Amino acid sequence: MYKTKPASECHMHHSGKSLNVLVLNCSLKHEPELSNTGELAQLVLDNMKEIDTDVSTEIVRMSDLNIPVGLDFKENDADQWPEVVKKIKAADIILFATPIWWGERSSLMQRVIERMDALDEEYIANGRSALYNKVAGVIITGSEDGALNVMGSIMMVLTWLGFTLPPECAAYWVGEVGIGGDTEKRRMNKSTMHMAKNLARNTLYYSHLLKQHPLEMK
Amino acid sequence: MYKTKPASECHMHHSGKSLNVLVLNCSLKHEPELSNTGELAQLVLDNMKEIDTDVSTEIVRMSDLNIPVGLDFKENDADQWPEVVKKIKAADIILFATPIWWGERSSLMQRVIERMDALDEEYIANGRSALYNKVAGVIITGSEDGALNVMGSIMMVLTWLGFTLPPECAAYWVGEVGIGGDTEKRRMNKSTMHMAKNLARNTLYYSHLLKQHPLEMK
Amino acid sequence: MYKTKPASECHMHHSGKSLNVLVLNCSLKHEPELSNTGELAQLVLDNMKEIDTDVSTEIVRMSDLNIPVGLDFKENDADQWPEVVKKIKAADIILFATPIWWGERSSLMQRVIERMDALDEEYIANGRSALYNKVAGVIITGSEDGALNVMGSIMMVLTWLGFTLPPECAAYWVGEVGIGGDTEKRRMNKSTMHMAKNLARNTLYYSHLLKQHPLEMK
Amino acid sequence: MYKTKPASECHMHHSGKSLNVLVLNCSLKHEPELSNTGELAQLVLDNMKEIDTDVSTEIVRMSDLNIPVGLDFKENDADQWPEVVKKIKAADIILFATPIWWGERSSLMQRVIERMDALDEEYIANGRSALYNKVAGVIITGSEDGALNVMGSIMMVLTWLGFTLPPECAAYWVGEVGIGGDTEKRRMNKSTMHMAKNLARNTLYYSHLLKQHPLEMK
Repeated sequence: MYKTKPASECHMHHSGKSLNVLVLNCSLKHEPELSNTGELAQLVLDNMKEIDTDVSTEIVRMSDLNIPVGLDFKENDADQWPEVVKKIKAADIILFATPIWWGERSSLMQRVIERMDALDEEYIANGRSALYNKVAGVIITGSEDGALNVMGSIMMVLTWLGFTLPPECAAYWVGEVGIGGDTEKRRMNKSTMHMAKNLARNTLYYSHLLKQHPLEMK
Repeated sequence: MYKTKPASECHMHHSGKSLNVLVLNCSLKHEPELSNTGELAQLVLDNMKEIDTDVSTEIVRMSDLNIPVGLDFKENDADQWPEVVKKIKAADIILFATPIWWGERSSLMQRVIERMDALDEEYIANGRSALYNKVAGVIITGSEDGALNVMGSIMMVLTWLGFTLPPECAAYWVGEVGIGGDTEKRRMNKSTMHMAKNLARNTLYYSHLLKQHPLEMK
Repeated sequence: MYKTKPASECHMHHSGKSLNVLVLNCSLKHEPELSNTGELAQLVLDNMKEIDTDVSTEIVRMSDLNIPVGLDFKENDADQWPEVVKKIKAADIILFATPIWWGERSSLMQRVIERMDALDEEYIANGRSALYNKVAGVIITGSEDGALNVMGSIMMVLTWLGFTLPPECAAYWVGEVGIGGDTEKRRMNKSTMHMAKNLARNTLYYSHLLKQHPLEMK
Repeated sequence: MYKTKPASECHMHHSGKSLNVLVLNCSLKHEPELSNTGELAQLVLDNMKEIDTDVSTEIVRMSDLNIPVGLDFKENDADQWPEVVKKIKAADIILFATPIWWGERSSLMQRVIERMDALDEEYIANGRSALYNKVAGVIITGSEDGALNVMGSIMMVLTWLGFTLPPECAAYWVGEVGIGGDTEKRRMNKSTMHMAKNLARNTLYYSHLLKQHPLEMK
C-alpha cells in the first residue's frame, strides 16, 4: 500500500513568518545512545530546512526528562512537564515521535498524552483549545509491525486536542517479521525517505496557511 | 475525556464557492430501516446548512449498492463502485460514516477502503492524489465501545489517501457497557451534538480554505 | 520482538479422539488465484498432520461463497452462511485466516464476525456458548504492517464468543515498509515457519485437553 | 454485543493445588486514592474466593513502585521491576488491570509490557517461556470507550509471552460518551458483574487444568 511514490513539489504559500517546529522524541533510550526514532525525526527536520530555511527546530528527548505519572499540570517540584508544555505552546508544528513496543506507542508517548489531558481540560473550561491552528505529524520506528495502528491511535488523540492533520501526516519504518530492526535498512528505505519529505512539505504548507488564515473563535 | 465543551463560533472564510458534501453511510441495515449512523450524519449535514446555506449534500447508503469484493476499479458489469468513485471525485468534503461491530468498522466501510485502493494506485503511478484538497470527517455509532479505535484506524487511511483532517474531525455515539444502544439516548447526548456541530464547522472552514489555497503540485 | 525462537517439542496428551480443523480463509482473491493467507494456513495444517495423523482438515474460501451483509442467521435464500455455521459447530479447532488491508482485517473476515453475532445472541439467550471448548488460532498475511493489531482485535472477539486461545495462538507474515508483499520471502521466513509450527502444536494440545476435560455448565 | 448473559455454573476440576493470583494494577492514581480499576480487580478476586477458598491473592499498585523506563532486567539500583518479576514467576494466574487513557492502556501498563520484554528474550534464548502454563485475564475501566481495543492489544502481547487465555478472559466497565466515569454506575453494572464472575470462574478452571496437564517441552 505504501509503495514508493514519485517525489513532487508544491507551490509553497509562505506566510512570511518563521515557524517553530518541536519534536517530542519518546524513544526508550537515553542520550547519547542512537535513537532510530530521533534519527528519522532529524531527517524530517532536514527536509523542512531545505524547503524553508527560516524554520527553527528542536528535538526533546523525553527519556531524559522527569515526567512523573499523573494528571495534574504539575505533579511535584521535580516535574519537568510544565517546561514541555511551554515548548508545545510556542511551537507551530509538533512532531510526535515514538518507537513501537509490542504493537503500541511507547510508555513515554503514552505519558505525554496522559499529561496533555490537562490542556484538554483547559479547552473544556473555556471552549478554546490552546492547540488550534497548530499542525501535527507523527514519526514512528519499530523493528517490525505496528506503525499504522500506532499512527491512527495518535492521530485520533491529536484531532481531539485541536491539531490540524495534513495529508500524509506521518513517516515511519518497520521491517520484515522476524528479521526486524536494522538501522542501515531504515536509512536506505526509499518509502521512508519519501514519507519524510512529504511530511516536511505538507506540515509546513498547512502551518503557513493557518498562520495567514487561522480558525478563529469569537 | 470528551465531555461537553461550550459551543463557539468561528469567523468563516467563505471561498465564494458552493461545496459538495458526500456521506458514505456504511450501516449494515437497508433502507428504509432506521440507521443510527445515517441519522447522526444527517445532524452533521443540518449543522452545515445552518452555517453555509449554499452547501449541497448527499448520503449514499452503501448496503443498498452492489459493491463486490475485489481490488480492481470495476470488478464486474453489475459493480456499482465506479458510480461511488464519481461521487467521491466530485465532492469537496467526504464523511465516512460507519457503525461499530465487535470493536471495528463495518464490513461495508472496510469494503469501501479496500476498493479505494485503486485510487491509491493511481496516485502511486502519477504522484498526484485525486483526493488532495478534499477534507474528510468520520461519523461513528455503536451500542457500546470502539468509537475511538474505529476513528483512528479510519483517519490513518484517510491521511495516506490525501485527505485533510481538520481539528475535531469526528462525531460519534456509544453507550454504557451492557446497556448499550438506544436511539433516544443518542439523540439527547450533548457531547454528540457538540461534536456534530464542530465537525460541520471545521470541515467547512478547511474546505473553503483549500478551495482558495490548494496544495498544488508542479 | 518476534525473532526466531528455537523449535521445541511437547508431550502431546492425545485424547484418543479425531479432531476436526476448519480454516476460514478470508482472502479477497477468488479460486484458483494464489492466496498467501491460504498458503500459510496450509502450512499450519501440514504441521498439524505431522503431529497428529488423525486430524481432519478443511479450508473454506470465503470469497467464493455468498455471504450477504446482515445480522440474521439467514439473510435470504441464496445466503450460504448457515452452511458455514454448520462447519463451525462441527469443528474442534477453527483458524481465522485473513489478509491485512489498510491495517485491518479484510471485509470478508469482518463479515464473518458480524454474521457470528447470531451465535452470540444464542449464548445470551441460554447462557451456554456453542463455541465453548473449541480452540481458535489466527493466521494473517499482509504486504506490510498491521498483523499484531489485526491479531489482537480478532482475539478479543474470539474470547467473547467462547473460544480458548492457547499460547502463541497465531502465525503471520508481513514485509518491510515500501518493499512489501513477496510470496517467496514469506515462504522462506523462519519466524513465520516457527509460528506455524507452534500454532499447530498448541491448538492441538489444548483441543485434546478440552476434549478430555471440557468446561461444563450445569 | 456484551449484554448481560444469564449466570451459570461449571463443574470445577480442582487440581488439589492452591493457586496464586497476582493483579498488576496499572492505575495512574496512587494509594490511598480510590482506583476504579483496582476495585473491579477486587471484585474478580472476591468471586474467585467464593469458588475456590484456597486461592491466595495479591494486588500490586504499580504507580507506587519505581519502574524506570528501559529494556534491561534491572535498570538501576532503585529499580523495583525485579521484585515484580519474582511475583509474576510465582503466580499461576495474572490479571493485567489498566485504566483507559485516550483509547489505550495506561503508560504504566505499557511500561510493564516493555519491561516484560526481558522475559521474552529469555524465551528466545532457551525456547522455554517462563510463562507457559500460566493463565491471564484482563481488567479495564475507563470513563468511556476503548475497552475492547485495549483488551485485544493486551491479549496479543499475552499470547506471545506464553500465557493461556480462557474464554471470556476479561472484565471491564466504560460509560456513555460525554457522560463518562461514575464509580456508582460501574458498581451497579450487571454486565460488568457478570464478566467479573465468568473471568474468575474461567481463569481458575484453566489454571487447575494446566496444573494437572501442563504443556511440557522436552
